[in-house]
Amino acid sequence: MSTAPDDTRHHVVVIGCGFGGLFAVKALRRAPVRITLIDRTNHHLFQPLLYQVATGILSEGQIAPAIRDVLRRHPSVRVVLAEVQRIDPAAQTVVATEVSGNEATFHYDSLIVAGGSVPSYFGHDEYRRTAPGMKTLDDAMHLRGQIFGAFEEAEMEEDDARRRALMTFVVIGGGPTGVEMAGQLEELSRRALDMNFRRIDPKTTRVVLVEGGESLVATMGARLSRLTARDLGRMGIEVHLGAMVTGMDEGGVELTQPDGTHLRIESITKVWAAGTRASPLGAHLASTTGVALDRSGRIQVQPDCSLAGNPEIFVVGDLMALDDLPALAEVAMQSGVHAAHTIMRRLRGDKKMKAFHYRDLGTLAVISRFRAVAKVGPLQVGGFAGWLLWLVVHVTFLTGFKNRFAALARWAISFIGRGRYERALTGRWVARAATDGGPAPDSA
Amino acid sequence: MSTAPDDTRHHVVVIGCGFGGLFAVKALRRAPVRITLIDRTNHHLFQPLLYQVATGILSEGQIAPAIRDVLRRHPSVRVVLAEVQRIDPAAQTVVATEVSGNEATFHYDSLIVAGGSVPSYFGHDEYRRTAPGMKTLDDAMHLRGQIFGAFEEAEMEEDDARRRALMTFVVIGGGPTGVEMAGQLEELSRRALDMNFRRIDPKTTRVVLVEGGESLVATMGARLSRLTARDLGRMGIEVHLGAMVTGMDEGGVELTQPDGTHLRIESITKVWAAGTRASPLGAHLASTTGVALDRSGRIQVQPDCSLAGNPEIFVVGDLMALDDLPALAEVAMQSGVHAAHTIMRRLRGDKKMKAFHYRDLGTLAVISRFRAVAKVGPLQVGGFAGWLLWLVVHVTFLTGFKNRFAALARWAISFIGRGRYERALTGRWVARAATDGGPAPDSA
Repeated sequence: MSTAPDDTRHHVVVIGCGFGGLFAVKALRRAPVRITLIDRTNHHLFQPLLYQVATGILSEGQIAPAIRDVLRRHPSVRVVLAEVQRIDPAAQTVVATEVSGNEATFHYDSLIVAGGSVPSYFGHDEYRRTAPGMKTLDDAMHLRGQIFGAFEEAEMEEDDARRRALMTFVVIGGGPTGVEMAGQLEELSRRALDMNFRRIDPKTTRVVLVEGGESLVATMGARLSRLTARDLGRMGIEVHLGAMVTGMDEGGVELTQPDGTHLRIESITKVWAAGTRASPLGAHLASTTGVALDRSGRIQVQPDCSLAGNPEIFVVGDLMALDDLPALAEVAMQSGVHAAHTIMRRLRGDKKMKAFHYRDLGTLAVISRFRAVAKVGPLQVGGFAGWLLWLVVHVTFLTGFKNRFAALARWAISFIGRGRYERALTGRWVARAATDGGPAPDSA
Repeated sequence: MSTAPDDTRHHVVVIGCGFGGLFAVKALRRAPVRITLIDRTNHHLFQPLLYQVATGILSEGQIAPAIRDVLRRHPSVRVVLAEVQRIDPAAQTVVATEVSGNEATFHYDSLIVAGGSVPSYFGHDEYRRTAPGMKTLDDAMHLRGQIFGAFEEAEMEEDDARRRALMTFVVIGGGPTGVEMAGQLEELSRRALDMNFRRIDPKTTRVVLVEGGESLVATMGARLSRLTARDLGRMGIEVHLGAMVTGMDEGGVELTQPDGTHLRIESITKVWAAGTRASPLGAHLASTTGVALDRSGRIQVQPDCSLAGNPEIFVVGDLMALDDLPALAEVAMQSGVHAAHTIMRRLRGDKKMKAFHYRDLGTLAVISRFRAVAKVGPLQVGGFAGWLLWLVVHVTFLTGFKNRFAALARWAISFIGRGRYERALTGRWVARAATDGGPAPDSA
């Protein structure tokens, strides 16, 4: 991988094409720079709709457009499919392994590290094998295979106890991701699989949502937390608050309840939505630059998202520790844009540090058809109004996806209707829930 | 797997849910029978559009609806996800391995075997590793990874020769499948990848179509063969007629040309569309019933599609040898319906044998946007008229797919427009064209 020798423009290397990296690159569109964007997948991922891929509503392409195609009108951007191995701040280089297996070295003038986060199992990485996270397309496809495979297996199962375990889904983590996943599993079993089976009744599926804290979607405030718990309860979802996962195996989950008693739930398919930690890239960057990591492995940045001692390196998104900002798509987008603007200002000769200020545009979680909770500024709405707001925000977010209308139309048809079109299990994804080796190792 | 003991209805077991099996089951809808449909995948596959999945136009779900969902309004049908291991004609049982790994035994009163076909490498099964076939969703997903992965690798490749090999696609077999695949690879490189790359120009991609016989789409007659060759040539596709594949490795294909000279084409991605042979189920059935196999491993059937000596067993579709009928979706559908009708007549007491007569509704192949060749009865049309006919026939064929309009709309948008939405490569599908171990072993 080389550049034309006469290309003397300022070279920005961006690592990761999630919300942080993509928005940084887009913000640099008219800057007098050349950009190399390195990602280990060929797609940007609209993570908030990952649960819809896992439950068969949307196809991979509908939430994961090819990066090259998204950036085809950005001639200054070169997209590289490769996995970053190391960063050398002294030499100002990034070394990455290409798809061919070759190592390539990229020299940068400015570096934006947007490596994102991975599921955190709080020291119990062995849980990952039986409870995949919800961070990558691989995770979603793996879960899709497990979920639809569990119903297939249940239909054949003679043993009552095992059939119950196959038809019990435990979602761990009561944030927006967990709430949406639990709600969608319930919709799937109550409506989408109607008349599909002859021996089992999918309507008897048990969906359990486990949250270690005192409330669901805690960041939305007490009123919406209560509304969420009430709506999920009415749908038939079993909510356990203040319950810690203290054990997990292929056949079930063990909980310690607030009163100290233990509860075992027999369940083959578990989904981990309990927390995230920074990508391992954070620890590597800390070791080479000497900056501090926070408890979640995130890099402590200066107020302008750059590193102390290495102002040419920016860290944005989930990998960034600043003002206790949460790991949200919106934070990633805004910090990515801030880093891009800082680079542009510096190129214009303005070296003054300008701090990043996050504008909280709100949080949302969809619960079921036509019901959602949303906190947008002073607004706190639930029910149908919340759902409408959710819709509006997602239409806005989807801007930049050339297939946003197709995705939305398909989503609307599937979600409002009964259909789950994306249920085809291919050989490699077909589930053997209990004996499956977990998601591909490269998805973390 | 058991049945309610009081269910004394005539039990029809159907093996395979391709066009033959599905149409047999649908034709039995109002018959006084109960049906067990066994397939090793959870989906029916609209094979004629498989090449559109491989080239990123359609998603898996758009051509592969869940069997359970297609048959949800057929309460007499039980769908079983399992792989058939053996058939015992004396005991009238089928033994299959369920997804759980357990073996289940199904006793039948009538049996319809619609096991389909697999790619035939004419004694060179080692070609399969480097040139996957086009029969299953796994094949298509594998090819999708190879095709888009080859462009990714080419973009990074420093070595000119290897970059050329990565950007050379060889399609082996000049029937409709091969012609459509070659045409679509050309469309992909000429239009869909426009502005996606910075170092390579996808427009310089070399697409080669190799046919061992004297003409393309030979079954359509000389005029349409010539028209097809002319249209493909005008698009820039390199057509080799009368050329036999005499060698193949990871880096290329060796051909022996009509004049006896040898030609090696350096190419990483090869697609095998040269021929099919009957599923191995044919050989098994022959060994247990004593019926004859033809050269392609197909079961010789009586004029009514049943087996000599075992009139309760029917063989339909690609697995059936009768009147030299070709392995076409339309033959499978009609023979499946014929077997179903024969069972229904017998149940009414009419034991007279009624021969199956195939009504040839025509053959079609799409060459590019707005161009196709079609032979329908006395009609032989090419160009835009052929394309319109192709469209009409596919809309008709898609009947029974509840998402037929969505699929068609998406197809139309992608095909007429520039977009290839389904390009996301997941971890397990991501291509390393040269070192990949070929498609999953279970896809054959």
